[in-house]
Amino acid sequence: MAIWLLLLLSYAIFPLYSSAISTTNKITPGFPSSKFIQPEQQPTKTNITSKLYKEKFFTQILDHFNYNPQSYQKFQQRYLINDKYWGGSSNNNSPIFVYTGNEGDIEWFAQNTGFMFETAPYFKALLVFIEVLWEVHALWGSKEIAYSNSTTLGYLSSTQALADYATLILDLKNNLSATHSPVVVFGGSYGGMLAAWFRLKYPHVAVGALASSAPILNFDNITSHLVSTISSPKTSGNYISAGSLSNWLGTAYTYTAMTDYPTPTNFLNPLPAYPVKQMCKAIDDPATGNNTFEKLYGAANIYYNYTGEAKCFDLVDDSDPHGLGGWTWQACTEMILLTDGNTEDSIFPASNYSYNDRLEFCKSNFNIEPRPSWIPTEFGAQHIHRVLKRFGSNIIFFNGLRDPWSGGGVLKDISKSVIAIVAKEGAHHVDLRFSTSEDPGWLQDVRKREVNIISKWLSQYYHTLIDSPNS
Amino acid sequence: MAIWLLLLLSYAIFPLYSSAISTTNKITPGFPSSKFIQPEQQPTKTNITSKLYKEKFFTQILDHFNYNPQSYQKFQQRYLINDKYWGGSSNNNSPIFVYTGNEGDIEWFAQNTGFMFETAPYFKALLVFIEVLWEVHALWGSKEIAYSNSTTLGYLSSTQALADYATLILDLKNNLSATHSPVVVFGGSYGGMLAAWFRLKYPHVAVGALASSAPILNFDNITSHLVSTISSPKTSGNYISAGSLSNWLGTAYTYTAMTDYPTPTNFLNPLPAYPVKQMCKAIDDPATGNNTFEKLYGAANIYYNYTGEAKCFDLVDDSDPHGLGGWTWQACTEMILLTDGNTEDSIFPASNYSYNDRLEFCKSNFNIEPRPSWIPTEFGAQHIHRVLKRFGSNIIFFNGLRDPWSGGGVLKDISKSVIAIVAKEGAHHVDLRFSTSEDPGWLQDVRKREVNIISKWLSQYYHTLIDSPNS
Repeated sequence: MAIWLLLLLSYAIFPLYSSAISTTNKITPGFPSSKFIQPEQQPTKTNITSKLYKEKFFTQILDHFNYNPQSYQKFQQRYLINDKYWGGSSNNNSPIFVYTGNEGDIEWFAQNTGFMFETAPYFKALLVFIEVLWEVHALWGSKEIAYSNSTTLGYLSSTQALADYATLILDLKNNLSATHSPVVVFGGSYGGMLAAWFRLKYPHVAVGALASSAPILNFDNITSHLVSTISSPKTSGNYISAGSLSNWLGTAYTYTAMTDYPTPTNFLNPLPAYPVKQMCKAIDDPATGNNTFEKLYGAANIYYNYTGEAKCFDLVDDSDPHGLGGWTWQACTEMILLTDGNTEDSIFPASNYSYNDRLEFCKSNFNIEPRPSWIPTEFGAQHIHRVLKRFGSNIIFFNGLRDPWSGGGVLKDISKSVIAIVAKEGAHHVDLRFSTSEDPGWLQDVRKREVNIISKWLSQYYHTLIDSPNS
Repeated sequence: MAIWLLLLLSYAIFPLYSSAISTTNKITPGFPSSKFIQPEQQPTKTNITSKLYKEKFFTQILDHFNYNPQSYQKFQQRYLINDKYWGGSSNNNSPIFVYTGNEGDIEWFAQNTGFMFETAPYFKALLVFIEVLWEVHALWGSKEIAYSNSTTLGYLSSTQALADYATLILDLKNNLSATHSPVVVFGGSYGGMLAAWFRLKYPHVAVGALASSAPILNFDNITSHLVSTISSPKTSGNYISAGSLSNWLGTAYTYTAMTDYPTPTNFLNPLPAYPVKQMCKAIDDPATGNNTFEKLYGAANIYYNYTGEAKCFDLVDDSDPHGLGGWTWQACTEMILLTDGNTEDSIFPASNYSYNDRLEFCKSNFNIEPRPSWIPTEFGAQHIHRVLKRFGSNIIFFNGLRDPWSGGGVLKDISKSVIAIVAKEGAHHVDLRFSTSEDPGWLQDVRKREVNIISKWLSQYYHTLIDSPNS
């Protein structure tokens, strides 16, 4: 039963990986820090991968959609590249695999996307990992200045990110004389949404997308709903409201549910295999008797101190080791993800979350109003199913059902080439992680299926290229 | 032979309907004015249609893709609406036909898009004609101020226009409780490009698009090409360079070729049926003997003075009766349409047009540099054929081969539902015009085919709606 409690709870959190900026605010629970934990020997292949890519920079235009003088400013967009496995450009048209970077440090995401490194030799693929605009601070002197007001933060948006990717990719292909090399985009979580949207908006740039754990259906379809919420607040979610402690506890339970991986990992914090199971064990531990707090603390310990090396915890720790500081901004502008929870059966006090709370937070923090109807307007929302039946192609939506975000994911095939892969025991973008020798059969099967589908896209592309080289 | 000469010439003009602002510049020939011509009895049904729509305004956000404080400003976006034939909203889900407004006064385009008025009763369609951002001047006090610098003009772009349409349409549907009413978009010329792109970028808003005379393939596919042109100028077009007179003549020949309609019209100027034929007659007129200038003047007279009422012509007339003043700006930012002509066999002096000329013009006029690779990046370019084979659906590309712009149009079916309709004798978006009793059989057939295809889209949509009302 404990696992259901955790799952219910974790639905209540809106950020994908929430920002450190806002730990003190009930709306955006803080990003979990590992600063009191000595990292154990990494179970992921961080040490290997960090040698496998080079850091490069692309001179990117600041605003693609406006032509005022400010928009022409340039910034250095960071990307990582690995050409070790690449089959070459103009002669072979070998593919380019691009990771559409999330809301943070691109190296962190690259190091946790072993799938691309491990499949690159098979596909002879060039690997590229692109960081989004967030590192734009050089333009304004420092990150602090860039993040201090809405004039500079204004450029941070999903549509600019997609246009950045398209611009960088086409320029890179051009520089490599690889105009005809097919591009496949990959992304997990928010990066998965970007990958799916990229395929939909830029089909002439990417032949397909693997969108892992992308809750693209978590946006409201109906403009009026959220607008009317402004005037009549009502409960539509379950946000932790009892201050730092419950925030600290909630963060542990939520992120453990998201990262309930079948093998030991160190994505957010070092965790054992199937950490939710370990949390449940801690809760059920007879030694803690009926002491609820002891039980909760024991469970949280799995998340915060699995290595057992921490001596104390900072409940309002606001370090941001993965550079996720911009997410709070995005949650105040366009990323108005609908989350729902069970306010009755929760261990946390029922909260009266409403759109108004978000509005007030955003006004006081950034002097800005969210645009809740923008994402549904730009990308579609819950009814996108109907549209994609006859429009678009070549997208894999992977979801692991243990991941609370799977509730907003595409869980059924939409068409022959817009495909849902669902793993009952899977967690947040587990398919993208490095393989290990302990990976269960279902995970190996998921990855095999993904490789097969991507192979098909590429083979289709090459056939079209041969059939009509100049049209 | 004369007709080929005219066609070759007219390829050399880059604006769809060029702007009055720039009559004195060789790069952007002036928009033809009718100010010395008394309008004859209109062959189109202007008088009827002007009573058939109501003018409305929508409070639109200034910049959809940025979140700085300026972007939140609102302006009143004008649209025209006709609900006379509409079958109703929530019960019937009757369709909504939307014209995606061009680079000018939306009333002018509405009055020249009889196809929508004439098919509305059959489809029980609501008609909406949306004007683009260009009427944003209220925000800045006056049109003169708005058009005076790149800070205010910066918001005028194709992507903002598409986002404006999506926002307005979804809000309108919501207000009419017509969430499930399917939307079909229509457009001719630049409006046709916007219609096609709207279907591709916003498939969740529009079920299909009729894109008439939309030269979407007239953009360069290769980023580097235009960039390299900057450093090494070369001839890639044939622009009239011999001042006002040749500009004035070129305008006449070009626009007559574009509007070589089979019946008398008054779209740009009052013209007889098949005006190119009349021009050829004037050139071949034995009365003018070997006097080349007399022949050219006689031909131009067809365009400028068919009614015979003009006493003199203003060769540098810069009136702008249809509000097309913003096109020069767009031609300096993103609408870098590739045009080609025969510089050898032209009656005009060979010109050394290069991208550099455009660049210099744009720098001196707006202090701005074009972004020639943006449209290919955002929407794809010449290779979009390959992409649309397996991506996207429900687009009709109509082209009339007498229209010089058909050279940049989609002239072959791309897939089962991305269809090219080509009329050998057709001119610029002739299919969208009001029908007349003299319409030739081929034109009637084109319109019937378009109606049938649109019916199919709608029927498919209603089936999907019945099959999965809540998914």
